[in-house]
Amino acid sequence: MLEYKAPIRDITFVMQELLDCESHYEKLGYQDATVDMIDAIVSEAAKFTEQVIAPLNQIGDQQGCQWNDGVVTTPDGFKEAYQQYVEGGWPTLSQSEEFGGQGLPHSLNAAIAEMMVSANHSFTMYPGLSHGALATIEAHGSDEQKQMFLPRLVDGNWTGTMCLTESHCGTDLGMLRTKAELNDDDSYSLTGTKIFISAGEHDLSDNIVHIVIARIPGSPEGTKGISLFIVPKFNVNSDGTMADRNAVNCGSIEHKMGINANATCVINFDNAKGYLIGEVNRGLNCMFTFMNAARLGVANEGAAAAEMSFQGALAYAQDRLQMRSISGVKNPDGPADPIIVHPDVRRMLLTQKSIAEGGRALLAYLSQLVDITHAEKDETRKALAENKLALLTPIAKAFLTETGLECTSHGVQIFGGHGFIKEWGMEQLIRDAKISCLYEGTTGIQALDLLARKILGSKGEILKPFMGDVTAFCQENYDNPEMAEFIKPLMSYFKQWQSITQDVGIKAMTNADEIGGASVDYIMFAGYATLAYFWAKMAKVAQDKLAINDDDQAFYQAKIKTAQFYFQRILPRGQGHAACIENGASTMMSLAADDFAF
Amino acid sequence: MLEYKAPIRDITFVMQELLDCESHYEKLGYQDATVDMIDAIVSEAAKFTEQVIAPLNQIGDQQGCQWNDGVVTTPDGFKEAYQQYVEGGWPTLSQSEEFGGQGLPHSLNAAIAEMMVSANHSFTMYPGLSHGALATIEAHGSDEQKQMFLPRLVDGNWTGTMCLTESHCGTDLGMLRTKAELNDDDSYSLTGTKIFISAGEHDLSDNIVHIVIARIPGSPEGTKGISLFIVPKFNVNSDGTMADRNAVNCGSIEHKMGINANATCVINFDNAKGYLIGEVNRGLNCMFTFMNAARLGVANEGAAAAEMSFQGALAYAQDRLQMRSISGVKNPDGPADPIIVHPDVRRMLLTQKSIAEGGRALLAYLSQLVDITHAEKDETRKALAENKLALLTPIAKAFLTETGLECTSHGVQIFGGHGFIKEWGMEQLIRDAKISCLYEGTTGIQALDLLARKILGSKGEILKPFMGDVTAFCQENYDNPEMAEFIKPLMSYFKQWQSITQDVGIKAMTNADEIGGASVDYIMFAGYATLAYFWAKMAKVAQDKLAINDDDQAFYQAKIKTAQFYFQRILPRGQGHAACIENGASTMMSLAADDFAF
Repeated sequence: MLEYKAPIRDITFVMQELLDCESHYEKLGYQDATVDMIDAIVSEAAKFTEQVIAPLNQIGDQQGCQWNDGVVTTPDGFKEAYQQYVEGGWPTLSQSEEFGGQGLPHSLNAAIAEMMVSANHSFTMYPGLSHGALATIEAHGSDEQKQMFLPRLVDGNWTGTMCLTESHCGTDLGMLRTKAELNDDDSYSLTGTKIFISAGEHDLSDNIVHIVIARIPGSPEGTKGISLFIVPKFNVNSDGTMADRNAVNCGSIEHKMGINANATCVINFDNAKGYLIGEVNRGLNCMFTFMNAARLGVANEGAAAAEMSFQGALAYAQDRLQMRSISGVKNPDGPADPIIVHPDVRRMLLTQKSIAEGGRALLAYLSQLVDITHAEKDETRKALAENKLALLTPIAKAFLTETGLECTSHGVQIFGGHGFIKEWGMEQLIRDAKISCLYEGTTGIQALDLLARKILGSKGEILKPFMGDVTAFCQENYDNPEMAEFIKPLMSYFKQWQSITQDVGIKAMTNADEIGGASVDYIMFAGYATLAYFWAKMAKVAQDKLAINDDDQAFYQAKIKTAQFYFQRILPRGQGHAACIENGASTMMSLAADDFAF
Repeated sequence: MLEYKAPIRDITFVMQELLDCESHYEKLGYQDATVDMIDAIVSEAAKFTEQVIAPLNQIGDQQGCQWNDGVVTTPDGFKEAYQQYVEGGWPTLSQSEEFGGQGLPHSLNAAIAEMMVSANHSFTMYPGLSHGALATIEAHGSDEQKQMFLPRLVDGNWTGTMCLTESHCGTDLGMLRTKAELNDDDSYSLTGTKIFISAGEHDLSDNIVHIVIARIPGSPEGTKGISLFIVPKFNVNSDGTMADRNAVNCGSIEHKMGINANATCVINFDNAKGYLIGEVNRGLNCMFTFMNAARLGVANEGAAAAEMSFQGALAYAQDRLQMRSISGVKNPDGPADPIIVHPDVRRMLLTQKSIAEGGRALLAYLSQLVDITHAEKDETRKALAENKLALLTPIAKAFLTETGLECTSHGVQIFGGHGFIKEWGMEQLIRDAKISCLYEGTTGIQALDLLARKILGSKGEILKPFMGDVTAFCQENYDNPEMAEFIKPLMSYFKQWQSITQDVGIKAMTNADEIGGASVDYIMFAGYATLAYFWAKMAKVAQDKLAINDDDQAFYQAKIKTAQFYFQRILPRGQGHAACIENGASTMMSLAADDFAF
């Protein structure tokens, strides 16, 4: 069975040494988020995830959730673990004090979320979905709604969901059919069926608060006629206490490739009582505030999958004896060498390590940007953070989930045939990781959001602040000979990113299909370049640390060597993507839909 | 549920139009393999796979095999389908007439194997493993052994296995512990435990004939002390009738990521009676004759996975309405456009199509080379075929299983969230396809076999015959303007392949780890280049056909367009691999094994 060990040293490196969270928090007025407090919380979270959550991962996969006449039972141990999670105050960490939260920064919670997902993807989705519901109510709900729903969502005794998808529409939400009719008391009656509702029904919490998109009769067609509602499983009195059961029922749960311990539900609303959030027909706008946060959460799943698969594969590669090193025996006293001596095993391990650690750095940076959007008073700085978040969120989501999935596949390869056997836990990581390439917008949707909506939609303006940061970093280190191996390719890749953007933009003027034709290769290229920037920054920090002290030499050396691996053996993949983009969309569009098969 | 439709038109194109199987068979003396006969057999096989085998694929995955006190029960319907398979005479097709076979060419059987694997990977493994056992006995067994075992293996009433792996050794067979002690009657007593024995125990056949590697006490250590044995589940009299039960037992079956309907067994030999095949301590050599055939069988699984996932995804993409085409509404009467209008969906579909059809062409060519090794009288021509097979087998195995797996992942992406739900059958394809990257030698092992053993081991000589074919094809078509878009990149990629080979060879002289460091990128580069050759050849045939007749215009146009897509959007990936190879192994080897994690 896989064991999880929280990578505390690297989390600390990223938060404190790379991103100087201490002064970041101080600037934003997070007085309580001192280094001592952070260390204590990270260390407690490590224990909780290693000892409580991780041991349930495999049994959760085996048992799955059980549906019986509308009631969903989670796997053995989940209920108790969730109770511990609530009692430990974990749900409240970064929630506002007004509703019972601890008021700590979002980015601290994000670091803990990485540990939780690594330890148990399915379990972590229960509180993860709550967070989405909570954030939506907090941002767009009325004061009365906040009083009714937020305290219990914050303390974790209630959980939440996001109900968007219907069987005939996932990406294309404008087609939705669920309807909401106004009642005399200003509440609404919702009728319709939603599918793929993660954590839609379960036995972990007293109440489940669904955030539902629906159409009010008479509203415009398409996305301009979508409104947003709160629909609780149990009705709620205005003082926040629970009342009678609402007409919300779980019709069935899906049998899936992975994340078996999370209930993916069909939810039927049968004249269920709901409360409008925000304005009529402005539901999608309210959703979008939340969407970016959810996408970062999914990006985190990609990096976490790489981390967990790396941990499993590394332990096996250090232990498993098979064949001799081609460059000479390394373990003369054993019957064979440990497979970590073989270059190709190292290639796979270092791919996992460079994605997991690079992803951690990127996500930690993005979580600091989220802190800024929450707590910064200066509107210019806030807008800058929002701009960078808008750019980097789809990149992080698409790139880290795709490379995270690849990493889980490497983990199985390193185990050889044993990787295919359930017992070892490695194949579950592939099955769980695949969902992250699909939900909250597939890789293809992220790619269109990035290239069509954001980059070409802003005529490239959205790129400037982030590219400015990269350019500044390159200039600062341009004359540093130790950094040359990173700075030169970094500059070249970012220049190429700009020229690719221009080329696609020009082609798109005469043929809009060139955008979709380039989009996924484009977002992957952008991902490789973006991670290169974070690896170069980490190498710089490690070099500086090595220059001034003798502690942790091996850690900093490993950081530099992993950066070198990333630049030499991962980043060049960008050239394949660039070449594909350059060749355009014509060969994708020329075949008639009926002529794909004969 | 997925439906399988045998791609008869394309199989016919590849066999008859691309590879002119008629004259190929005539030259080798396969008198019965006329075009009419081939058409009839392919069409019967299509019916059998579509109607009998394919409908069991999903239920097979759901039910899996059941183990109960040593007895293994296959899923509902498997036994009856296997009976139909035997009664239809399918196992006998390409077996020698001497033992009851029909004496038809191997390559015809290979075409049918593609349909069978596409329809049901797990089911097809039962006869597939038989084939390995049968081929080993036929090539290396004594006349008495052939008389005892072959007739029933040929007619399919008995099945076979290959017992190699033990829990502590898979790749490194020299470490095996199963021992074989000589009895007074010249038979041997085998004792030991083998794992991962596909089709090791089941209820489909009367007897199971295990081909087992073991060590005779006193033999040299390592691979030079391995001998090969026949160990039947039921003992066999010298006239080939069944006798009492042998001491061979199935200890358990594995719970796996996929291929759940094929029993992966722990097989215990407890002084089981066995018969030596070939010479003492020459077991691995006997195995190697068979190994290449098995690897081609697995390569076929990769291409078949791409085909099946393509079929499922294409039907969905033509049917599912979601969003409007970015270049203008395509389905004005519907609420949205079918998703096949979206360029990125087409990119994924065409990736699947180009791998499935390109892989089919490569594998059909390789199966003709196998025909030549079986039936050619001229030793020079035979040696040439063996040379090309040795080169192209690891490429086909590694490249088609890796790209086949990628294609199954695209299939799920095209379905969006629905792809993750078991009901649709798309996620099963990923789970089944993953094993093909592992068994019969992982991708990493294929890559070392290719680069270290075969290419550098022959100082590049092994490349010459195949590269000669490619060069000749390029020269023939060099002045054809219609072929320029294929010939120029093809020449460039094959030149680059040679220069990469030289570069790695030079680096390897001073550091052997450069071989392993380059190997997987090298085999993927070789795979992209090799498939480009087959796509260029198919484009040429299609152009010629379009020039001379009006039939099937759409089919030939689609073939050319898919070739164009392959050259424009798939082949350029080779540049990413080439750049990684060029950067060498140093960044993979510099990190101490203990410093991968902190």
